[in-house]
Amino acid sequence: MIVIGELINGMYKDVGKAIMNKEADVIQHLAVDQMKSGATALDVNVGPYSRDPVGDMKWLVETIQSVAQVPLSLDSTRIDVIEAGLKLASKRAIINSTSADDDRMQAIFLLAKKYNTQVVGLAMDKTGVPNNKEMRLELAATIVAKAIEFDISTGDLFLDPVVLPINVAQAQGREALESIREFRLLCDPSPNTIIGLSNISQGTKFRSLVNRTFIAMAIANGLTSAILDPLDKELMDSMISAEMLLNKAIYCDSFLEAYRKK
Amino acid sequence: MIVIGELINGMYKDVGKAIMNKEADVIQHLAVDQMKSGATALDVNVGPYSRDPVGDMKWLVETIQSVAQVPLSLDSTRIDVIEAGLKLASKRAIINSTSADDDRMQAIFLLAKKYNTQVVGLAMDKTGVPNNKEMRLELAATIVAKAIEFDISTGDLFLDPVVLPINVAQAQGREALESIREFRLLCDPSPNTIIGLSNISQGTKFRSLVNRTFIAMAIANGLTSAILDPLDKELMDSMISAEMLLNKAIYCDSFLEAYRKK
Repeated sequence: MIVIGELINGMYKDVGKAIMNKEADVIQHLAVDQMKSGATALDVNVGPYSRDPVGDMKWLVETIQSVAQVPLSLDSTRIDVIEAGLKLASKRAIINSTSADDDRMQAIFLLAKKYNTQVVGLAMDKTGVPNNKEMRLELAATIVAKAIEFDISTGDLFLDPVVLPINVAQAQGREALESIREFRLLCDPSPNTIIGLSNISQGTKFRSLVNRTFIAMAIANGLTSAILDPLDKELMDSMISAEMLLNKAIYCDSFLEAYRKK
Repeated sequence: MIVIGELINGMYKDVGKAIMNKEADVIQHLAVDQMKSGATALDVNVGPYSRDPVGDMKWLVETIQSVAQVPLSLDSTRIDVIEAGLKLASKRAIINSTSADDDRMQAIFLLAKKYNTQVVGLAMDKTGVPNNKEMRLELAATIVAKAIEFDISTGDLFLDPVVLPINVAQAQGREALESIREFRLLCDPSPNTIIGLSNISQGTKFRSLVNRTFIAMAIANGLTSAILDPLDKELMDSMISAEMLLNKAIYCDSFLEAYRKK
C-alpha cells in the first residue's frame, strides 16, 4: 500500500499559519510523525490562502527534505507551483493531480515526462464529478489514453474515482468502490488506484469509524494507495489488517507492529 | 443485513455447562442480549459434548422462545437434532447447514421443504474446503441446482464460501471474499451470502480487529448475512457503517443508534 500522508496542507489552520510564518519545526514534525506512523509518501499543498504559492511550495519541499528523504505528492491546481516543487524534489515525485480535461492533461503529462514523475488522475472533468461508475470509468480511460500518448507507463498512474462526502452523496460511495475495482482492469500494467479518504467522512459524526470502514471496503475492491491521516492509529490498524487479510503482507501475531517497523 | 448471533453454542464452556445443567437464565440472557445488540436471528447449537442432542435442542428452542420470538438457525450435523428444533420453532427457521454432498443435500432439502425453512449451503464437500474461488463456485452451483430441483427459491439459500483462519490459510481470505461476489450472480433471485465470521480470526492475536475489518471487506463484496458475536460493539459499528456506506441504510448523524433502535 502506498500511503500518502495528508497533513501538510495549508488548508489546515495550524499548517497555514506555519507556512505563513515559516515555522519549519511545525512542518518537520508533521513530516516525521507521518512517516513514523506508516506514511510512505507525503502530500504537499500550500493551501488556499498562500500569498506566494510558488515560494511557499519551494520552502515546504526544502523544509521537509531537510529532515525526511521521502517521495512527495505535489498537490496544486497551478502548474507553476507543481513545477517549483518538482525542481527541488530529491525522490521520484507524484503530481497531484490531473483531471480528464485535455488542457490540464497536456500540461500535467508534459511535466510528468520532463521530471519522470507519477501522476494522480481524477475521474472528473470541467463538468464535475460523474454520478455513476460508468462515467467515472470513461473519464479514467481518457486519462489512461492520454498517458499512453505521452509514453507514460500506466503503472505510474494513480486513478482516483473521486470520493464524495457520504452525508451529501450517499449513493456515490458504492459507485466509487466499484470504480476502483474496474480501474484496475483498464490497462496493463494495472494502474494504481487512489482515494482521498477523508472526503468520505466530511461533516459526519464518527469520522474515524467511517474512514476506517471505507478503507477496508476499498482495499477489498483493489485499492493500492490512499491519501489519508496516518496519525489515526485505528485507521492504520484497519488498513494494515485489510492488506494482511488479502495476503499482501504475511500474517504473524505481531502483524501490526511488523508493518510499522518496515 | 441478516445478523445471526453465534453465542448459543455448547462448544463455549459456559454455554455447554448451562445446557448440561438446564440453567435456563444463562441461555435466556444470551438470547436477549444478542437481540438487543442487533442480532436478527439466533444460531442454536447443542455443542459437541451433549449426551442427548435431541433433548438438548428441544430444551434450547423452548427456553429461547419463552423470552424471544425470533428466527432460529438450527445448527447441527445430525438431521434428527435439526428436525427436533424445527418441530418447535415458532418463526420461519434457517437450517445450518448442508454441504454440497448429495446425501446431505437430499436430507436437508427434504426437511427444508417439509418445514418451509431457509438453508445455509456450505461450499465444501466430503473432500474438504476448496482452496480457490472457482471450486467454491462449482460447489455453490451444485447446491443451487439441488435447491431448484426441490422447488426451493434460491432467495432462501444462504451460500457460505467457508472462511478459514487467516493464520493457517492466509491465501483463502481473498478467495472467500471473491466467492461472495460471484455467489450473488449465480441465480435469480440472488441467494443470500453468509460467513461464519469468527473463523477468520481463530488463533490470531487481535480477534476483534480482524473480524471487524473482514466484515467490512465482505460487505463490500456483497455479503448479506453473517453468523457473528453481536456483543462485540466495535464489530457491529463496522458492520453498520459498511452497510450505510453502501447506501443500504440512510445516513443520519446518529446512524449507529438508528440501526440499533430498529
